[in-house]
Amino acid sequence: VLPDAPVLAATPVADVLLDLFVVLLAAKIGDEIFKRIRQPAIVGEILAGVVIGPAALGLVQPGEPLKVFAELGVVFLLFWVGLETRISDLREVGRVAAQVGVLGAVLPLVAGIALGLLLGEGTDTSIFLGAALVATSVGITAAVLMEMGVLKTRASRTILGAAIVDDVLAMIVLGVAIGLAGKGVDVASIAVVVVLAVAFVAFFSLGGTAFMRRRPQILEAPRFSESPLLPAVILCLGLAALAAQIGLAAIIGAFLAGMMVSETKELTPVGREIEPLYAFFPPFFFAFIGTQVDLGALADAGTLAMLAGVTGLAIATKLAGAWLGARTLGPQEAAFVGVGMVPRGEVGIIVAGIGEAAGVLSADLFAVVVGMSVITTLAVPPVLRMIARRGLAASGAAGPSA
Amino acid sequence: VLPDAPVLAATPVADVLLDLFVVLLAAKIGDEIFKRIRQPAIVGEILAGVVIGPAALGLVQPGEPLKVFAELGVVFLLFWVGLETRISDLREVGRVAAQVGVLGAVLPLVAGIALGLLLGEGTDTSIFLGAALVATSVGITAAVLMEMGVLKTRASRTILGAAIVDDVLAMIVLGVAIGLAGKGVDVASIAVVVVLAVAFVAFFSLGGTAFMRRRPQILEAPRFSESPLLPAVILCLGLAALAAQIGLAAIIGAFLAGMMVSETKELTPVGREIEPLYAFFPPFFFAFIGTQVDLGALADAGTLAMLAGVTGLAIATKLAGAWLGARTLGPQEAAFVGVGMVPRGEVGIIVAGIGEAAGVLSADLFAVVVGMSVITTLAVPPVLRMIARRGLAASGAAGPSA
Repeated sequence: VLPDAPVLAATPVADVLLDLFVVLLAAKIGDEIFKRIRQPAIVGEILAGVVIGPAALGLVQPGEPLKVFAELGVVFLLFWVGLETRISDLREVGRVAAQVGVLGAVLPLVAGIALGLLLGEGTDTSIFLGAALVATSVGITAAVLMEMGVLKTRASRTILGAAIVDDVLAMIVLGVAIGLAGKGVDVASIAVVVVLAVAFVAFFSLGGTAFMRRRPQILEAPRFSESPLLPAVILCLGLAALAAQIGLAAIIGAFLAGMMVSETKELTPVGREIEPLYAFFPPFFFAFIGTQVDLGALADAGTLAMLAGVTGLAIATKLAGAWLGARTLGPQEAAFVGVGMVPRGEVGIIVAGIGEAAGVLSADLFAVVVGMSVITTLAVPPVLRMIARRGLAASGAAGPSA
Repeated sequence: VLPDAPVLAATPVADVLLDLFVVLLAAKIGDEIFKRIRQPAIVGEILAGVVIGPAALGLVQPGEPLKVFAELGVVFLLFWVGLETRISDLREVGRVAAQVGVLGAVLPLVAGIALGLLLGEGTDTSIFLGAALVATSVGITAAVLMEMGVLKTRASRTILGAAIVDDVLAMIVLGVAIGLAGKGVDVASIAVVVVLAVAFVAFFSLGGTAFMRRRPQILEAPRFSESPLLPAVILCLGLAALAAQIGLAAIIGAFLAGMMVSETKELTPVGREIEPLYAFFPPFFFAFIGTQVDLGALADAGTLAMLAGVTGLAIATKLAGAWLGARTLGPQEAAFVGVGMVPRGEVGIIVAGIGEAAGVLSADLFAVVVGMSVITTLAVPPVLRMIARRGLAASGAAGPSA
């Protein structure tokens, strides 16, 4: 055995090990503290990211390797959520979820564009602002729902279904925004991508789950492997990569893979075997979101006012749109769905990054969108718990149904 | 939810997902094929890496993210080996292991330097060649020993102990080699690093395990966490990062962390919880070694002859040195130990990379050292199994003792 590193000079890989150690340790500490003060653990993990990130101590720089671990974090998170979801669960809530997805996308989009135009920004910048307000981070909400143990309620399933609809719509908006920022809108290529995305979701959610229902032993020994873990993980990474390649969020692929594998759960111990990966990777995702916060850029009073305005608009319009779409579920559950759709999480940050790279979002607007994403993400978990607790006390409507 | 990727253009992170999928799928296929033809699974995984790497299909480029996953692969591999090792097991074999480590390092070093000088290379190049021959990849051998279920035999424990001695010596040689290639040998700084390394190993192997033996409940609920998984993984990453920062191999730190945690095994389910991480990461390590093979550079007859000579020398000198050190164990076990020290694996490749970057290894010599590393790695597992089977048939000396 020989050193990875020349004497007295650590290699890049050795530095990555150190970053992974620091992030995981900080996230775990944040998690434990927040559990002890009876607050959502993921909020503790995000704040740990703020503390160790460039905004405060500067112990880690959120570079490429950390991004990959964060991405795998949300991929395994949504795979886990998929494992807890049956396609039949989603079918039941199909129509309401579609309404929530559509209304919860249209209202923030229109408001974002209007705000941009009112502020005197160009059409391209305004559409990017709208696109950033459309984005829902189902990863954050799903983690909170799991922590609360209410993933199988009707309201939670509505949120998951709506998130898929939301993602397809958001892809269209972002496609248009990028087209406008660059060489103009290419309607044909956007249409191709949308058709591909819808076909992808339909094929794996319907065909994939039906196939697994008929051949659940395919992940099992000795047909393919002595353990279902790697076949399941390979399916998860494959669908995540495929989704990302056609322009959808990777997590949509991971979620569909989880739903497929969930059809085999009675036969294989896949849930128990995946659990350690689910414990290991997601903290990188939550802490990574925290490292994106740039307090310096928000020191300016004008930017701070802008942040307050955009955040207020992001919350109000998503809440109103999703609530309208879910109103047939009754006020209590509609409120739960509305709040659940509010977090913008990593998705808002990614849209902001694309907009900044395309040269249509200024550094100030970038910081505002990132700030809005983090604030909506931090604010939602406590509110969701409050609504759920009230619901349990009143009618039990938000309690576990499965 | 919004796309990670702009329409029609995948992000770097999306491409990493695709690489991870391809590598894991290929490794799993290689693994299954080799299990079915009753050959060591890790050889199948390395050959899968050759097939998908630049040498054949070119499906993946072994870049930075894949390197990080390969490193975590060997880190979790050695952590797992440490979990199966008690410090008391190593104490028993201490003197023999030290002899194996020293003699198994000195002979290849002298032979490598002599070969370099005979070929008319400069002192700096010759010392690098020697350093590359010193390197033992305990990761490869440990994986084969685990697959064979003989990790707890006296011969296996001797190999693990010798690997640590070997690593400290190799660090000194590499330090001198780098010093010669650059601004000259800085004896003082090398001495500091060696003292640090020895202190690191002694502190965690003796003090760390003693601490855990006295307070095994430290990893347990509700003192620190509801599951021992993350505390154990954090300890593993922390010691691996620390080892890498002081110039030792990261895997030495991971191995020591595993030995510490193994003292708590009776109390916690940590082994079962780590197992999925051990299933997920190491395939990246084995496949990565395969992707390093450059068949093009070896097409030349002179280079091929050089490869044959260097590989023969690497095998003969390591075998002879380690066998001499272990001869008191009897011929059967001494042969097992000797063969077990032969694989150069990732460590030879890393030394070659450092030498090339320092400008003292030509592209041809680089390809030769990498080729030697991969050949010694592929050749050892079948031979080890053969020796162990004979031993089991004859005396049972290499069979499980625990």
